[in-house]
Amino acid sequence: MSVALSDIVAALGGELLGDASARIDAIAPLDGAGPSAISFLANPRYRSQLGSTRAGCVIVAPALRDEAAARGAALVTPDPYLYFARLTQWWAVRTRAALPAGVHPGAVVEEGAYIDPTARVEALAFVGAGAVVEAGTVVGAQSFVGRAARVGAGSRLAARVVLGERCTLGQRCIVHSGVVIGADGFGFAPDQGRWEKIEQLGAVRIGDDVEIGANTCIDRGALGDTVIEDGVKLDNLIQIAHNVHIGAHTAIAGCVAIAGSTRIGRHCTIAGASSVVGHIELVDHVHVSACTLVSRSIRQPGRYSGSFPFDDNASWEKNAATLRQLHALRERLKALEKKIS
Amino acid sequence: MSVALSDIVAALGGELLGDASARIDAIAPLDGAGPSAISFLANPRYRSQLGSTRAGCVIVAPALRDEAAARGAALVTPDPYLYFARLTQWWAVRTRAALPAGVHPGAVVEEGAYIDPTARVEALAFVGAGAVVEAGTVVGAQSFVGRAARVGAGSRLAARVVLGERCTLGQRCIVHSGVVIGADGFGFAPDQGRWEKIEQLGAVRIGDDVEIGANTCIDRGALGDTVIEDGVKLDNLIQIAHNVHIGAHTAIAGCVAIAGSTRIGRHCTIAGASSVVGHIELVDHVHVSACTLVSRSIRQPGRYSGSFPFDDNASWEKNAATLRQLHALRERLKALEKKIS
Amino acid sequence: MSVALSDIVAALGGELLGDASARIDAIAPLDGAGPSAISFLANPRYRSQLGSTRAGCVIVAPALRDEAAARGAALVTPDPYLYFARLTQWWAVRTRAALPAGVHPGAVVEEGAYIDPTARVEALAFVGAGAVVEAGTVVGAQSFVGRAARVGAGSRLAARVVLGERCTLGQRCIVHSGVVIGADGFGFAPDQGRWEKIEQLGAVRIGDDVEIGANTCIDRGALGDTVIEDGVKLDNLIQIAHNVHIGAHTAIAGCVAIAGSTRIGRHCTIAGASSVVGHIELVDHVHVSACTLVSRSIRQPGRYSGSFPFDDNASWEKNAATLRQLHALRERLKALEKKIS
Repeated sequence: MSVALSDIVAALGGELLGDASARIDAIAPLDGAGPSAISFLANPRYRSQLGSTRAGCVIVAPALRDEAAARGAALVTPDPYLYFARLTQWWAVRTRAALPAGVHPGAVVEEGAYIDPTARVEALAFVGAGAVVEAGTVVGAQSFVGRAARVGAGSRLAARVVLGERCTLGQRCIVHSGVVIGADGFGFAPDQGRWEKIEQLGAVRIGDDVEIGANTCIDRGALGDTVIEDGVKLDNLIQIAHNVHIGAHTAIAGCVAIAGSTRIGRHCTIAGASSVVGHIELVDHVHVSACTLVSRSIRQPGRYSGSFPFDDNASWEKNAATLRQLHALRERLKALEKKIS
Repeated sequence: MSVALSDIVAALGGELLGDASARIDAIAPLDGAGPSAISFLANPRYRSQLGSTRAGCVIVAPALRDEAAARGAALVTPDPYLYFARLTQWWAVRTRAALPAGVHPGAVVEEGAYIDPTARVEALAFVGAGAVVEAGTVVGAQSFVGRAARVGAGSRLAARVVLGERCTLGQRCIVHSGVVIGADGFGFAPDQGRWEKIEQLGAVRIGDDVEIGANTCIDRGALGDTVIEDGVKLDNLIQIAHNVHIGAHTAIAGCVAIAGSTRIGRHCTIAGASSVVGHIELVDHVHVSACTLVSRSIRQPGRYSGSFPFDDNASWEKNAATLRQLHALRERLKALEKKIS
Repeated sequence: MSVALSDIVAALGGELLGDASARIDAIAPLDGAGPSAISFLANPRYRSQLGSTRAGCVIVAPALRDEAAARGAALVTPDPYLYFARLTQWWAVRTRAALPAGVHPGAVVEEGAYIDPTARVEALAFVGAGAVVEAGTVVGAQSFVGRAARVGAGSRLAARVVLGERCTLGQRCIVHSGVVIGADGFGFAPDQGRWEKIEQLGAVRIGDDVEIGANTCIDRGALGDTVIEDGVKLDNLIQIAHNVHIGAHTAIAGCVAIAGSTRIGRHCTIAGASSVVGHIELVDHVHVSACTLVSRSIRQPGRYSGSFPFDDNASWEKNAATLRQLHALRERLKALEKKIS
C-alpha cells in the first residue's frame, strides 16, 4: 500500500508542512524509518533523533514545527502519539482485507441463536442456543459463544475465544485468542477436610470498547456478576476472579491477578505481574507499579509500589539473609539508642 | 425459577423457622438480597447485617437462631456456609437445562475410541483412538481428548479443553476452558550452548473430584507421571510442571507456579501468585500466603509468607534503596555495638 | 517395547560394559528403576544411589566406570545427561505411532493456502488463505494457522495452537497446546481519560528449533516484528510482549513476563515467575533467578536475583513491618554514629 501525505491529512487532520504529494508506504519508528515511511516524535527525550531520522515525514507537536520542517515534511498536531494511534487505525482499515459477513458452513450454530446478517461467524466456531450475535461482529474461527451469551455490535472475537453461557460483551470490544470469559469462579466450602463446590450462578458483564488480551481469564460471579466497565483494557494472561468489578478506562498489564470480589476504580493502571488480594477496594486514579502485591484497600489516588529490588546474586544473597533478621536488627538498634542516651 | 422454603429443607435438611410456604427465586448476599431471596450468614463479623438485610430467609448457625427468627424466616444449620454451598448445587441442578447424551455429528471421534452411551460429546470436539469416555461425562465443544486418554465417569470438560495422549482424569472432575493437561514438561540437556530436548515420556494422572480452572497447565512427566490426587482444587492460570505430585484435598489459587518434581502435601493451600521451586517437598497442612516464593522444603505444617509490603511509591523508593545496603547497615550496627561495649 | 542394550549403543554410541543382549523396556530414574530399566547418573551428588539402584543398566561418566561396572551393565559416555536426552528422543521415535500425512476431511483449509503433501493437518484445524505449511509438519487438531502465516519444515503444532496472520515459524519447532502467537500487542494512546487503540501492524518471527510451552503468548509487534531467535526454549504461561527480541538459545521458565520492546541476549536463562520491564536490554549470558523483577538493563553477564525470602508467617510479619521503616532505621543509625564519633 502507498498513500500520499495529503490522503493522511484529509482523513486525520493536522497541519502538513512540505510536499503533500509525497508518498508513504509504511509507518515506522524514528530510528528505523526510511524515506518512504512516516514516523512520529511523541517523547521530547527522543528529540535528538529528529536530526538523524531518514523518515519521509515526521508527526510532531507545535513546539517542534520549525525544527521538523527544516529537515523535510512534517505533520504538526497537538498530540503526536494520539495522531499516530489514529494513523495506525486508518492504516489497518486500508490494508486489511474486508471479510464478508455470513456463517461459515463449517461453524455450528444451534437452533435459537440469533446471528445478525451483517455478522461474520468463521469456520469451526460454535454459537449456542439463545445467544445473540449483533450487527457487524466477528466470531473468529474455533471460537465458542455459549448459550444465551451476547456479542455486542461491532465486537470482534479472534480465533479460539470462549464467551461462556449468559455472559455479555458490549459494543466494539476486541477479544483475543485463548481468552476465557465465564469459567466458574474458585469457590468452595470446607467440609471435614474436603472442599464442597459452590456453584457459580452469576455471569460476566463487559461494557463497550473493552479489549482483552490473549489467554486472559474472567470468571463468572458466584451469585452476582463479575463486571468490566466501558473502555477497560486488559493485556494477556490476566486473571480476573469472580465478582471483581473493574471501573471504566482502567488498563491492566500482562500477568496481573485480581482476587475475588475486589473493586478497582476508574482510570487506574496496574503494571505487569502485580496482584491484588480479594475483597478490597482501590479508588479511582490509583496506579500500581510492576510486581506489586496490593494487600489492602487503597483510599487515595496515587502511585503504589512493592517490588523487591534485584541485584547481582551475591549482593542479593547478603541482603536477603540480613532481611530475615531485620526485626532483630531493629531491636539491637533500639537497645543501642537507649544505652547511649 | 421459584421454590418454597419447604422444598429447600426437604432437599437439604436444616431447621426452618417461619413460613415454610414462602417462595424464593434467588440466592443473594445479605446486602443485596430482596424479599424473595435466600441469603446466609457464615461469618460472625457480618452479624450486624442481620438487622438490615431484606432477605426473605437467612441461613444461620444455632447461636443466631433467636436473632434471625426475630426478623423473619430463618434456616438453622450447624455450618451455614456449607449449607449455602449445597444449596447452590441443588439450585444449579434445578435451573440448568439437562443436555442429552450422544456424540454431536460435528464432533470427530477416531475409530477405536470408546464413548459410553450415557456420555455427551459436543460439537467440534475430538476424541482420539483408544480413548475412553466413561458414563455420564461431558466432553465440551471444541475439546480435545488425546489417544488412549481416559475421562472418568461423571467428569465434565468445558469447551476447549485439552486432555493429552495417555493422560487420565478420575471421576466427577470438572475441567474448565483452556486447560491443557499433558503438554510436554520443560526438559532439556545443555549441549555446547544449545538445548537438546528430553522427550517427555510420562503422562498426567488425575484423581477423583478434582477441579481445574481456566487456562491452567499440567505438564506430563519426563519419565514417571505428574500426579494430582483426589479432591484437589486448582484455580485459573496455574502452572504445574512435570513430575509434580499434589496431595489430596489441596487447594491452589490463581497464577501459582509449581516447578518440576516438587511434592506438595495433602490439605495444603497456596494463595494466589505464589511460586514453589522444583525438587522440594511441602508436608501436609502447609499454607502459603499470596505472592510468596517457596524456595526450600517445608517440614512443618503452618503458615508461610514472603511478599514485599507495598507502600506509596515515594516511601517504597526510599525503603527499597536502603534495602540494597542492608548488609552494610548491619555491619555498621555491629561496629557501633563493638565501639560502645 | 523392549530393546537390547546393543540396539541402544548401535544407535547412540557410548561404551557398553556388561551383557549387550540384556533387554530394556523402560527408562527410569535411579531410585525407581527395576532390572529391565535403563537409568542415568548425571549429578555426582547422587553417586551413592549407584549402590542401591536396581536398574538393569546405568549411563555414567568415565570417572564412574569401575564403580558402575561392579554392580552390573553400564554405558559410559562423557555427558550422561546429554546421552539420556538423546535416548529419550530415540525412544520416543520407536514408541510413538507414526501418523500419516494429509489433510483431515474435518479440517478447513482456505483456498490459496499451500499444504505440502508430506504435512499432516489434523481434524478441525484451520489454515487460512496464503498460509504455507511446509514439508513434514504437523498442524494439530483444532489448531489455527492464520492467513499468510508460515509453518517451517518439520515443525509441529500440538492441538489447539494459534499462529496468527502473517506470523512465521522456523524449522523443527514444537508449539504446545493453547499457545497464542500473534495476538495484538498492548498499545494505546491516552486521550482525555480514554484509551485509543494503536493497531499492531507488525508480526511475530520465530527461528528454527524453538519450543514454546502450553498457553504461552507472543504478541505481534506494533510496527516492526517481535523476534524469537533460533533454539530458544519457552516454558508454559509465558508472556512475551510486542517488539521483544529474544536471542538464540535462551531458555525461559514458566510464568515469566517480558514487557514490550525489551531485548534479551543469547544464551540467557530466566527462572520461573520472573518479570522483565519494557524497553531495556539484557546482554548475552545473563541468568535471572526465580521470582525476580528485572527493572533496569543488565550490561554484565552473570546471575541476578531479587526475590523476597519467605519465612514462617510470624517472622515474616515482624520483618515486613520493620521493612516499611527501613529508611527511618538507617537515619537512626546514622544519627547514632554521629553522636558516638
